Amino acid sequence: MLALAGHDLGITVTTLDPTVDSPSAQVAPAIVGAYDDRAALLALADGSDVVTYEFENVPAAGTRFLAERGATLRPTPDALAVAQDRLAEKALFAEVGLPIPDLAPVDDLDSLRAAIDAVGLPAVLKSRRLGYDGKGQAVVRHEERAEDAWRSVGEVPSILESLVAFDREVSIVAVRDADGDVRAWPLVENHHRDGILRTSIAPAPGDDAPALQRLAEVHARSIMERLGYVGVLAIEFFVAGDTLLGNEMAPRVHNSGHWTIEGAATSQFANHLRAVGGLPLGDTSMAVGAAAMVNLIGTVPQVLTQLDVPGIHLHLYGKEPRPGRKLGHVTVTASDPASLEASLLQVTPHLADA
Amino acid sequence: MLALAGHDLGITVTTLDPTVDSPSAQVAPAIVGAYDDRAALLALADGSDVVTYEFENVPAAGTRFLAERGATLRPTPDALAVAQDRLAEKALFAEVGLPIPDLAPVDDLDSLRAAIDAVGLPAVLKSRRLGYDGKGQAVVRHEERAEDAWRSVGEVPSILESLVAFDREVSIVAVRDADGDVRAWPLVENHHRDGILRTSIAPAPGDDAPALQRLAEVHARSIMERLGYVGVLAIEFFVAGDTLLGNEMAPRVHNSGHWTIEGAATSQFANHLRAVGGLPLGDTSMAVGAAAMVNLIGTVPQVLTQLDVPGIHLHLYGKEPRPGRKLGHVTVTASDPASLEASLLQVTPHLADA
Repeated sequence: MLALAGHDLGITVTTLDPTVDSPSAQVAPAIVGAYDDRAALLALADGSDVVTYEFENVPAAGTRFLAERGATLRPTPDALAVAQDRLAEKALFAEVGLPIPDLAPVDDLDSLRAAIDAVGLPAVLKSRRLGYDGKGQAVVRHEERAEDAWRSVGEVPSILESLVAFDREVSIVAVRDADGDVRAWPLVENHHRDGILRTSIAPAPGDDAPALQRLAEVHARSIMERLGYVGVLAIEFFVAGDTLLGNEMAPRVHNSGHWTIEGAATSQFANHLRAVGGLPLGDTSMAVGAAAMVNLIGTVPQVLTQLDVPGIHLHLYGKEPRPGRKLGHVTVTASDPASLEASLLQVTPHLADA
Repeated sequence: MLALAGHDLGITVTTLDPTVDSPSAQVAPAIVGAYDDRAALLALADGSDVVTYEFENVPAAGTRFLAERGATLRPTPDALAVAQDRLAEKALFAEVGLPIPDLAPVDDLDSLRAAIDAVGLPAVLKSRRLGYDGKGQAVVRHEERAEDAWRSVGEVPSILESLVAFDREVSIVAVRDADGDVRAWPLVENHHRDGILRTSIAPAPGDDAPALQRLAEVHARSIMERLGYVGVLAIEFFVAGDTLLGNEMAPRVHNSGHWTIEGAATSQFANHLRAVGGLPLGDTSMAVGAAAMVNLIGTVPQVLTQLDVPGIHLHLYGKEPRPGRKLGHVTVTASDPASLEASLLQVTPHLADA
């Protein structure tokens, strides 16, 4: 989607991906190579004015290697490194005044037991690194299951976090350019199943949404300024009463912002390229009354292309189907939230996940 | 733009184009070959469920060759052949009850003089074949310039057409699927300069627009039914009083329909693929209050990517700049015609054509 947005802006995107025929390779020139393959990284940087990433688990060392060789990395390797470590990420949240759940670092079984004493139960054990879509997480409800949880996250450095009794999850997608201009899209309400994002609704419903939006924008701006961030950043929050708790951030275009292609004046993809490419940012306001993004997970129901629902937009990524894999998404746009819900009711019954 | 629409629908598009690094080759697999290269045509058809075209000057013989070899051509080679011959096209218009300007066929200087007597002056001499963007046309205002006009169209079979004193030019873009379902996008008002389309405004302004829309849809339906047409068809009309005169048709997605990517519920590109691919057609109504498409001709002003105008969407085609060449377009969307005009006033001063 970044490469496609680049095409329209006259920005040529070349990608580095370890797989042949990756989604981006289907729409743009691609280098096939591991993310830490130095020759491949240099080939990528040599032909590029700026290097960015859209997957937060690319090794920060690879981006540092390129930065040392003089390449322009946006966002910076440091921002990537913070986002790759849940402890550093949460420390940053706390530092800028974004409340976080009670938590404690865990490095072994002993420190896990100490963390349980400090944080209380129920809690979630989360590996510090390489976690997304609910991977590397285990809920701990009873102290005697601590060892199981430790094994299930892979016995790696982790954090134990109090299980928050939250009302709902929202996310803000924001963008900052090199001059410090910051813009944010409307706050989005997210619904997960099995730890994977299923649906995002924009703008987030509720009378408290405008207040939460202002709050989320303040936090996003503080975090981006602290990191000297350039590009799109997404932050997921738990809403607890009238408070936002910081859950995690993604230093990239984000699944909960995919609706912006049809639903916002400027998409997150176009604005990410504008930010990293040194162009002025585009308008992030809604282009429609309401929009929803529904992920297609594991399977793409044939019937989807057959539906004649107002405002339905199909996006397939050209990936081989595999259980739990995000193969595409459907954006539904409408003039108002009630019409959006009516359209969603026509679409979602066809989405049997695999 | 067809290939990009296909990507979202899970329809893989392979193109045949005589140039290396054509716009489509930059976003989809491509065969490089002449449009009448039989080996290239067979390679295209062998890997495809259906073959279509988005340029009306591909040789009809090539499409006939493929149809005889069992390929499914949509639209049919016959529809293409009619659209390639201004005389056959105008005869079809007349046949279905669409008024046309006075005209007479011209095969040599003698028949041109006879045509001038029959049609009167001023008139336009147009080559029957291979004309678009004002190519192969010459206005004849004085009988003594007849020979110059004849030379300027290349001394090829032509028609002489009365120069219509029209109020404005509008076009309808419509789509028909194999089951005979027909849909049309809102009527568009077109503005040309030097024979090349510059700007399309949707929906066409004016109190008479709803009546003209109904009329245009009736004609589009009649023409498509007569041709057994499957796919997107565009028809350009002159508006003279409350009458529509048929100017020409294009058997393909059309420049005056590019605004549908952002401005309509379903784009002309998605619906063309839906029609030729056997999927149900999508909604063709406006997704925004008003939209305009402005072509970028000969040059892409650097400032365009720098503008922060509400509702501006840039589309670049990845073509080498050349005077008179369409290099991309800008779509501007707005909540209403007045806001659209305000945005256009911010954009158009930057568009110095080359």
